[in-house]
Amino acid sequence: MQLSIRMKTIAPMKSPARFIDVKALASAYAQPLAQLDNFLEQQIAAFEPEVRPYIAETFKHKGKRLRPLLVLLAAGWAPAASQKAPEDVIRACAIVELVHLATLVHDDILDEAEIRHGAQTLNTQLGAHQAVLTGDALFAHALCLAADYPGTEVCRAVAAATRQVCSGEIAQTFARGDAAVSIVNYRRFIDLKTAELFAVSAWLGAWIASKNNTLANAAAQFARHLGIAYQVYDDMLDLRSQEQKAGKTLGTDWATGKFTLPFILLWQVMPTSESQALQQRCVAGNISLEEMEQFFQHFQIDAAVMQWFEAELTAAQHSLEPHADTAAGSLLPELVTFIRSAMQRLLPGYHG
Amino acid sequence: MQLSIRMKTIAPMKSPARFIDVKALASAYAQPLAQLDNFLEQQIAAFEPEVRPYIAETFKHKGKRLRPLLVLLAAGWAPAASQKAPEDVIRACAIVELVHLATLVHDDILDEAEIRHGAQTLNTQLGAHQAVLTGDALFAHALCLAADYPGTEVCRAVAAATRQVCSGEIAQTFARGDAAVSIVNYRRFIDLKTAELFAVSAWLGAWIASKNNTLANAAAQFARHLGIAYQVYDDMLDLRSQEQKAGKTLGTDWATGKFTLPFILLWQVMPTSESQALQQRCVAGNISLEEMEQFFQHFQIDAAVMQWFEAELTAAQHSLEPHADTAAGSLLPELVTFIRSAMQRLLPGYHG
Repeated sequence: MQLSIRMKTIAPMKSPARFIDVKALASAYAQPLAQLDNFLEQQIAAFEPEVRPYIAETFKHKGKRLRPLLVLLAAGWAPAASQKAPEDVIRACAIVELVHLATLVHDDILDEAEIRHGAQTLNTQLGAHQAVLTGDALFAHALCLAADYPGTEVCRAVAAATRQVCSGEIAQTFARGDAAVSIVNYRRFIDLKTAELFAVSAWLGAWIASKNNTLANAAAQFARHLGIAYQVYDDMLDLRSQEQKAGKTLGTDWATGKFTLPFILLWQVMPTSESQALQQRCVAGNISLEEMEQFFQHFQIDAAVMQWFEAELTAAQHSLEPHADTAAGSLLPELVTFIRSAMQRLLPGYHG
Repeated sequence: MQLSIRMKTIAPMKSPARFIDVKALASAYAQPLAQLDNFLEQQIAAFEPEVRPYIAETFKHKGKRLRPLLVLLAAGWAPAASQKAPEDVIRACAIVELVHLATLVHDDILDEAEIRHGAQTLNTQLGAHQAVLTGDALFAHALCLAADYPGTEVCRAVAAATRQVCSGEIAQTFARGDAAVSIVNYRRFIDLKTAELFAVSAWLGAWIASKNNTLANAAAQFARHLGIAYQVYDDMLDLRSQEQKAGKTLGTDWATGKFTLPFILLWQVMPTSESQALQQRCVAGNISLEEMEQFFQHFQIDAAVMQWFEAELTAAQHSLEPHADTAAGSLLPELVTFIRSAMQRLLPGYHG
């Protein structure tokens, strides 16, 4: 098999890490990502004529393609490879990107509803309805593509992950306004809503390329920890960008009652009575972000977040150690470097 | 195989039809429908704790279970059979019901938005978001169940049907306000949004029970025509119930710019200039339903609708003629009787 031959020719890469940011990573995988763009473009014809503009619109927002990159690295695909990536690997990239795009489309419904609160027009609502159905069609098409593999493993993995992603979003939305959300639940929410799709991306890549279930499960385990670390980074990014755009609080986690890791870690280290009082002020919206940041600084919450974040990255690396001699086992850890660098740029005060 | 033995022992039933309404049908299938209720109840545990109340709430609204009944009849399951229906047939019933429930949940988002237009609260919108995600989770769970069959045929059929159902809804929503929607497009919309799931229901039942693809395709063809006839009935029901509740026009097809069969047939038989003027009045909302009904009566639109409806039922019956000696081929046509009776009760002025 062409793929397994290629995989064996790749020597494990220890250091230096080459992918210190997502741009370097995307550039090394420009060829298969262009194949993905083409593949997605071709899918538009599978939808009814009236639906195609909506699907095409969705495809315009490319994002970082993190999940397809996970597929490619887990498939052991060599960076900057000049040959074309196999169709079944690209199809897996498309599946996870379609599921991701569908969740974004459905998430936007809430965001838009909030931003335009009190000023809704019928048009906006028709737009929301179209968004619901467009997301549904994207989900369904991802499953159609999953059914194109021999065997039901891919179907089952994608359908289960999709259900978990939705469950995670529901569970976290359900906990909105609960400042005392437990760290166990916070981790469960981000495990479901983010890490699950990371895990299935890596599983698909490794499984399709190697048919080795042990390797695929290890890659999935790696990607699950990575996904949790990535969501922690994303939650910190939300908090810190909110700070930069003072006054514009709508659409960010805190303003919508979503209490993320720094808050939860703060409650843990504060004296109980102070913590409860602060939680009440937070829920009532009776505190500025500037004042909150003083609490975070005083209790060294950035360092605590970093510790929690690093624990996930370490667990991710451990998951792949038994497979260090495989292409997937040597490529995937580079994502740890990339996510760590991003976090270090966000929290420059932290020096390990 | 137990199922095929049972199928052979059922004698084809010509007349009299026993299922003149859906209650008689549901009563003859009380045992497998109870099994379906149990099966659905058991699925709730597969969702995260926070999601379960939403899923359970969805399951409370039982509806007519038309799609599961199609599965059962296409599987050749004997009416009033005392033994338990096989698990794989019940699972197929659950799959099509879950897809149907998911579409209802997502359709309600638009309906609620319209009804509460101008009086939206954040709570309502959070409710809408939960509805989006609950629908997603239901879709995804249907696909999880589909992945439990050996082979990818069931996955592929369910995923493709789901995509078509969404596409049909989008396409019809897109055509809202277009009084001059063509009869070809109208038929395409209802084929996608309704008949597709009818077809996959019958296909699943016949295929799972017989593994005979020719029979399964014939059953699907039958159910597709039946589904189109059923949607025409449902559209007439929407029009006539609107009449009965004069003044309360919100939420019905016409008020939301959805022009259904009687309108399209009316434009065809009216002189062009009159038709265009009337279409303009309809779009502007500048005509009462009473006046519209006078046009329908004058141009004998009920009879024209009935003719169109009967053509679908005839085509349905033709599809199954080569399989009249199978259990599916003898049971499914009873649904024609049931839908025809319902239509005749709705349009009592029509005597064929």
